[in-house]
Amino acid sequence: MTNPTCFLHSPLDMHIHFREGDMLRRVAPLSARTFAGGVIMPNLVPPVDDFGRLERYAAEVRTAVAGHAFEPYMTLFMRPYTEKELASMKDRIIGVKLYPEGVTTHSDTGVGNLRDVEDTLASMEEMGIRLMVHGETSDFVLDRERAFLPVYEDLAARFPRLDIVMEHITTLEAAALLDRHENLYATVTLQHLLITLDDVAGGLLNPHLFCKPIAKRPEDRDALLARALEAHPKLAFGSDSAPHPVDRKECAGCAAGVFTAPVALQMLVGLFEENGALDQLQAFVSDNAQRIYGVAPPEKTVVFEKTGAVIPERYGDVIPMYPGRKLDWTVADVH
Amino acid sequence: MTNPTCFLHSPLDMHIHFREGDMLRRVAPLSARTFAGGVIMPNLVPPVDDFGRLERYAAEVRTAVAGHAFEPYMTLFMRPYTEKELASMKDRIIGVKLYPEGVTTHSDTGVGNLRDVEDTLASMEEMGIRLMVHGETSDFVLDRERAFLPVYEDLAARFPRLDIVMEHITTLEAAALLDRHENLYATVTLQHLLITLDDVAGGLLNPHLFCKPIAKRPEDRDALLARALEAHPKLAFGSDSAPHPVDRKECAGCAAGVFTAPVALQMLVGLFEENGALDQLQAFVSDNAQRIYGVAPPEKTVVFEKTGAVIPERYGDVIPMYPGRKLDWTVADVH
Repeated sequence: MTNPTCFLHSPLDMHIHFREGDMLRRVAPLSARTFAGGVIMPNLVPPVDDFGRLERYAAEVRTAVAGHAFEPYMTLFMRPYTEKELASMKDRIIGVKLYPEGVTTHSDTGVGNLRDVEDTLASMEEMGIRLMVHGETSDFVLDRERAFLPVYEDLAARFPRLDIVMEHITTLEAAALLDRHENLYATVTLQHLLITLDDVAGGLLNPHLFCKPIAKRPEDRDALLARALEAHPKLAFGSDSAPHPVDRKECAGCAAGVFTAPVALQMLVGLFEENGALDQLQAFVSDNAQRIYGVAPPEKTVVFEKTGAVIPERYGDVIPMYPGRKLDWTVADVH
Repeated sequence: MTNPTCFLHSPLDMHIHFREGDMLRRVAPLSARTFAGGVIMPNLVPPVDDFGRLERYAAEVRTAVAGHAFEPYMTLFMRPYTEKELASMKDRIIGVKLYPEGVTTHSDTGVGNLRDVEDTLASMEEMGIRLMVHGETSDFVLDRERAFLPVYEDLAARFPRLDIVMEHITTLEAAALLDRHENLYATVTLQHLLITLDDVAGGLLNPHLFCKPIAKRPEDRDALLARALEAHPKLAFGSDSAPHPVDRKECAGCAAGVFTAPVALQMLVGLFEENGALDQLQAFVSDNAQRIYGVAPPEKTVVFEKTGAVIPERYGDVIPMYPGRKLDWTVADVH
């Protein structure tokens, strides 16, 4: 008798933080091993917001994932861009990422007032360049995403041909917007399908589950999970995997981010299996994204076996989600 | 020209964690220096729940505060007690503290089912022994106090002569209960007058502001502050000052508790002054408690001067609330 197996074809992570330098070289191969491609976030210091910086960062990323069938989909950090600038970079990016000023890690050079990028948004719509958004305001932490939803609705209505991705949605109400505006899409992380604020702060405080947007209420998590398990056609997996060295997590001022990249797929297989939805996982982790973003990632088949494994305690100085926890599924082969 | 001064007479902290051993010897004098008395929590391991343990702990506390005009008001950890047991300890305690099982630090031996202590509550009512309660359920972290409020209402109605103190209230709705049941009282901490969940998890995650019950929404904080500033006659100050060594705070599983004892009064003077309510502070930090609990603490006058100070970064291996932050007021004299 053989162990149960499961296959995923060209899985995609539509929201990853690869960082730069040593951290990039450590974490990028962990994604590139199992994923066939991913959307690389531009919130570096300084941000990826011109041609030269984009070219250099793309080259650095390609070097870090060399030897893997992995396509990095690069992004630009939103600022007011001229049409000429956008035209020069259009074919090298999957979209422009908008960070409202100050809402998350390395967003202090983000957009303070949307009016400042009106013309850029109009050009993007005209040129068919996707907008990706960290949709939070600076309101009370639990209200930030909900308070941003009218902005999504306003943008979706005023720029009807602009594809807008609500990144890492965390609330029932954000999920509901998918069905209200044709040009609104979303990514959702692994942790927001699994945890609530209870897991972060309900027992002992767990900095390794602290991220932005912060995990919300059980009804929010349940709504997101339901959309993922049905592979809602406008929803794609984006891990928002965000590595921080342990001394930036277990300290007096813990940085936001959960590191899931190396175990996300194994955990997703387990989660979808538990919920009797394994047949929807291929769409959730690849097919939806291929259709939504119009990408054709490298061919890659990941074979999972139900042989059990344990999540490593550390990857270098980075602690993953659920260190030491048992996994039912393990990656048996990638070809 | 002299600096502004302010006086408090026999300030009381109606909810303190003194711990045992080395920690007790370190933190108790920090409270005893400025406070004239305090309610000492019984959730040690094992809990303070019999005559011998109570006597030994009271003696250890008295040794730790020797030389200070400070009266420790001892408490018992709730379990089913016989009338005889209660009678033997009645004059040595200010009340019995009820911890629902598993809701906070060292509460795993707490009460699983209130029916188990019905007889004890009836005896306490008969004998005039106060009930103090950590009022949280095991619901979703932000709902725990609200979900417990019907229990307070039920107890208040069924034991109308039992004085019940809602410890460390954190919500608008808990504050409102004070005006609905004659025999319900409350303590409130310093941090719950100052912070919301935003301060804990809205920017970087701050383990030193993580406590149970967790800080809630701005409207909750504002409601508590309003009651404190008016020195609501059924509300007393109780710091819930809870020292943990830094390695139990800045780690993967941070213990709940904010350490405020050595700076609480100075911060309260500043807070009440800012809000034009300095004339209410004496009632909030002493007179209300003297009346509610029927205690007559040692005579002690604390003189504050507006000369400025800085909160120490550490007290041994314990990090206080707001380390390094400037204070307007400092303790100039205690006599």
